[in-house]
Amino acid sequence: MNSGQTQNSIGSMNYQWAFSLIHYFALQGVTQAVISPGSCSTPLALACEQHPDIHTWVQIDERSAGFFALGLAQQKHQPTILICTSGSAVANWFPSVVEASHSYTPLLLLSADRPAELQDCGANQTMDQSFLFGSHVRDFIALEHVDETLLKSNYLKRISIQAYSKSLNQKPGPVHLNIPFREPLLPRRFTANDLNHFIQRLSQQTMDNATSLFKLSAQSSILTTSISKKSLELLKKTLKTGSGLIICGRLTRQEQSDFTALLPLLADKLNCPVLVDPLSNQRFTTSCHSRFLYNYDHFLKQELKQVQVHTDKNKMTPKWIIRFGQFPVSKALLQYLQSLESHIILVSSYGDCLDPIHKANTILHISPEKFCTQLLNSSIKTCATDWLDHWQQLERHSENSIEQSVKHCSDLFEGHVINCLLRHIPDHSILFSGNSMAIRDFDTFTTQSSAHGKQLNFFANRGTSGIDGNLSTFFGLLANQDGYGVALLGDLSFYHDMNGLLICKQLTELGYNATIIVVNNNGGGIFNYLPQQQLDDFDKLWKTEINLDFQHSAKLYGLNYYQVNTQQELEATLPEAFAQPGIQLLEIIIDQQTSVECHKQI
Amino acid sequence: MNSGQTQNSIGSMNYQWAFSLIHYFALQGVTQAVISPGSCSTPLALACEQHPDIHTWVQIDERSAGFFALGLAQQKHQPTILICTSGSAVANWFPSVVEASHSYTPLLLLSADRPAELQDCGANQTMDQSFLFGSHVRDFIALEHVDETLLKSNYLKRISIQAYSKSLNQKPGPVHLNIPFREPLLPRRFTANDLNHFIQRLSQQTMDNATSLFKLSAQSSILTTSISKKSLELLKKTLKTGSGLIICGRLTRQEQSDFTALLPLLADKLNCPVLVDPLSNQRFTTSCHSRFLYNYDHFLKQELKQVQVHTDKNKMTPKWIIRFGQFPVSKALLQYLQSLESHIILVSSYGDCLDPIHKANTILHISPEKFCTQLLNSSIKTCATDWLDHWQQLERHSENSIEQSVKHCSDLFEGHVINCLLRHIPDHSILFSGNSMAIRDFDTFTTQSSAHGKQLNFFANRGTSGIDGNLSTFFGLLANQDGYGVALLGDLSFYHDMNGLLICKQLTELGYNATIIVVNNNGGGIFNYLPQQQLDDFDKLWKTEINLDFQHSAKLYGLNYYQVNTQQELEATLPEAFAQPGIQLLEIIIDQQTSVECHKQI
Repeated sequence: MNSGQTQNSIGSMNYQWAFSLIHYFALQGVTQAVISPGSCSTPLALACEQHPDIHTWVQIDERSAGFFALGLAQQKHQPTILICTSGSAVANWFPSVVEASHSYTPLLLLSADRPAELQDCGANQTMDQSFLFGSHVRDFIALEHVDETLLKSNYLKRISIQAYSKSLNQKPGPVHLNIPFREPLLPRRFTANDLNHFIQRLSQQTMDNATSLFKLSAQSSILTTSISKKSLELLKKTLKTGSGLIICGRLTRQEQSDFTALLPLLADKLNCPVLVDPLSNQRFTTSCHSRFLYNYDHFLKQELKQVQVHTDKNKMTPKWIIRFGQFPVSKALLQYLQSLESHIILVSSYGDCLDPIHKANTILHISPEKFCTQLLNSSIKTCATDWLDHWQQLERHSENSIEQSVKHCSDLFEGHVINCLLRHIPDHSILFSGNSMAIRDFDTFTTQSSAHGKQLNFFANRGTSGIDGNLSTFFGLLANQDGYGVALLGDLSFYHDMNGLLICKQLTELGYNATIIVVNNNGGGIFNYLPQQQLDDFDKLWKTEINLDFQHSAKLYGLNYYQVNTQQELEATLPEAFAQPGIQLLEIIIDQQTSVECHKQI
Repeated sequence: MNSGQTQNSIGSMNYQWAFSLIHYFALQGVTQAVISPGSCSTPLALACEQHPDIHTWVQIDERSAGFFALGLAQQKHQPTILICTSGSAVANWFPSVVEASHSYTPLLLLSADRPAELQDCGANQTMDQSFLFGSHVRDFIALEHVDETLLKSNYLKRISIQAYSKSLNQKPGPVHLNIPFREPLLPRRFTANDLNHFIQRLSQQTMDNATSLFKLSAQSSILTTSISKKSLELLKKTLKTGSGLIICGRLTRQEQSDFTALLPLLADKLNCPVLVDPLSNQRFTTSCHSRFLYNYDHFLKQELKQVQVHTDKNKMTPKWIIRFGQFPVSKALLQYLQSLESHIILVSSYGDCLDPIHKANTILHISPEKFCTQLLNSSIKTCATDWLDHWQQLERHSENSIEQSVKHCSDLFEGHVINCLLRHIPDHSILFSGNSMAIRDFDTFTTQSSAHGKQLNFFANRGTSGIDGNLSTFFGLLANQDGYGVALLGDLSFYHDMNGLLICKQLTELGYNATIIVVNNNGGGIFNYLPQQQLDDFDKLWKTEINLDFQHSAKLYGLNYYQVNTQQELEATLPEAFAQPGIQLLEIIIDQQTSVECHKQI
């Protein structure tokens, strides 16, 4: 057994170890940490809490904590620390880890672990945490045991640079560090003075020799810098073959940053239509661009029917298509692309071949911004004017048709909700969409006129498109900026992450304001559009009515609650909710049958 | 594109494929399936629902679904099917998978997946599901695409036998089958007649050639059958060296079955004390055995202090120790064992070396039942009578001391709760304990007299000892038997799995009766006993008050709710709750400071 002295030295080293690691992350630019309470993780939690440059959040449910960190990280495209204790706690992160991996969100997963002598022998809260997230992290780093020699070397600095860099560069995503600690976890006594002294010493040490290294690491960027001469020539040749299209899907905040200013210029130069998915974040900009089309889901559905009765195909057949970002939400667009033989150029920032229809002819591993810059500096052929005219006519026609149809549905349905929401949402808000029906409704019902030229930051969990963790992701996005926040999601998604509401109290105390809109159609409305709808077992296995009155959830977590049943109530209540301080829960009761009929009319 | 005929044939094959697999599992003895709704998993969900021998449960949150299945499986030690759709849904199973792995619970994880052509190309709800649970499953089986040749071969039969067998034999645990489906997922039309015809044909086919094979597979057993002659001789020699102890930790239902009758006989024959952990399920039996000791956590704490002041060590120093099952909950017992140099024989049914203190001298890979049988059939030396007497005296003294201390605490604390619960719980109930403080309180406050000779089935999630999924596990245990159910857990554990309460409505409709007792001390009470308690950041990072009024949770899920603040209220309310039909939520408000003081007095 260790003497008291040794024990104290183990505790002290544990703390210094944890603090150093956190400090190195802070030096590289990390500012946020999300902690789920536990014993094993004590040195890490305490180090974050005591570090002057790290803001810590506490969320008890590790699944919600993971998604909260995802939101924090996405908002500024900045690696965010997650901390939890050993055992099944870590496994609760998995849903947010797969979402982070597929949405290119940088996370630093710091799981505490028991030491080697307690592994694989039935010790409490101990399991194999090595490679726990398999292919879904960019790197797994098993830290050595806390050790004085390593502490004095640059070991932790190197580890922190490796982890930070792999989470942010090349292909952003989660990185898992597994960190074993021996007991005692902390020194028996540890005064504020000791801490200050330690911070100073550490800062001095790293200032001396590491500043330049960190600065380099902190400048994250999409790595490839230019299209090769040969590729550019081929590209220009393709663009010469006739008229084409730009399609812009989901982009990370990193991809959006400088690209948003360039895309309209490229559209002008090519004189071509740009189909903008809501998640491209190009629909909600102050200056509305006439070449940007929102309502292709509507008019392509019509066109696809017409193609089958042999109308003029040429008007709708591009010679080439430039695709940015992830594959768009619209199913009509997917089917349309499947029917074409156009030359497709996929601009892929992170090197993934995001092409589920296997139609891309060229994949360029380059950022959208660099791609635009190079093309704008080249001489390229513009599209025919009647080509663009035709697409713009379809857009106007669809916009009119959607708006008329929404007006004519007298019973409250999702079309009214999107419309009313976009009218009243404050400028510069975060707008988060749930998956399943919510994102499809945003895709369908957002028209150029309903978007009102508002500048919004639109988000959704479209990496793996789960109904899990939606509320927590929204809260994370909200917590890492100054503006208002609105989330719109269905009742099943709301139910799935109700535990995430625990953080509302902290957010309210810190002065954040937001409204959560639950479109409650009592069950999985999306399945009404699938063939399962005809089965006898439909209600039990797919529709799954949950019959929950979310008023009680609001009471449980201290949220203001509003219920809306009609168009009139919606028009009166939504602006009222937006005007209240703190976090509001607005439940909109929608009849599933009515909703299906209204959707089908459109 | 496929013709209508081909599409119909794909849909039909998908269904036959899923139904065959489920049917083969049913033939081997599977009776329960837990389904989380989704599109991709449609053929599997429908096959379970339509199979006459499978009872299906629906739980929307896959994390809770996983733990519910864990409970179902543990109750009868029978493999239980889990079904969910592709994407992050599957990742939500992970917490229950690690718990199942470490608690030797057989689960059949059937994840639906998208086909190969949609992998790794940005398709919606698609991710790499291969080897998703790493080392935490007994096997990962990637099923081939649905295929007519394979369907006609015995491919699915072989897969089902492999999966079932690996989940149940040798070392029981979860097995993951990943099952890709192409669209359309179902035939366009499928009548009840078609289904009946198909079931008949399949039954006939399997009856012909597979019955004997399945019967063999269904007879699960712990595989090793005897101690070798040499080992037995060594064992007898060890037992001859002097007096010893038996320690019985957590056992699976499979291990408990025949062992429970044999353990008292072995204790008699060896004339030795048996320290029985609550999870051995040996504390709650009709015939109370005088050699079984419950209160070692109490008297070993005292003894450990005395050893340090040099009392007669010999009275407490066994020459040998026979350990059954997992390492016990009691920390005092752990420290006591660490201080000894006794010869320890670990009886390990599933071959794992469950020895976190590295003290076992012999590990026998044999079931406790077979071990007892062999020893009972051998001539072995009994322990000295004064040895047993001393231990029994300590037990009586501790029992008395615990009961007096509990009586003298006037403010309501956990000791009163355990006492009152054990007095009123119906015989043959399931009793589920949460982790953290709840299990430790059961360990401390269950005395021979407070147990009242009641026969109970005691459970807790002690594989990885998480605070996650506790409610769902309890509901699964409840749902797979006929008796009453009582769960006792803390507020943080209750909060973590509130989504699990969604299944209460189904359980109530089916006539199940249970009471959930939440000991609400507003935060992580266990951390009060750790050194972190002295830190300034204690309240934020460890205690983590959640300030939730669970009355609202009860309302949300339609549970009867009771709140208790004093001993008198507890005595009046608990029997009232137990007498009500359906599921009751009883919240016991406990002051954390009072509770700590009462615990420390004892």
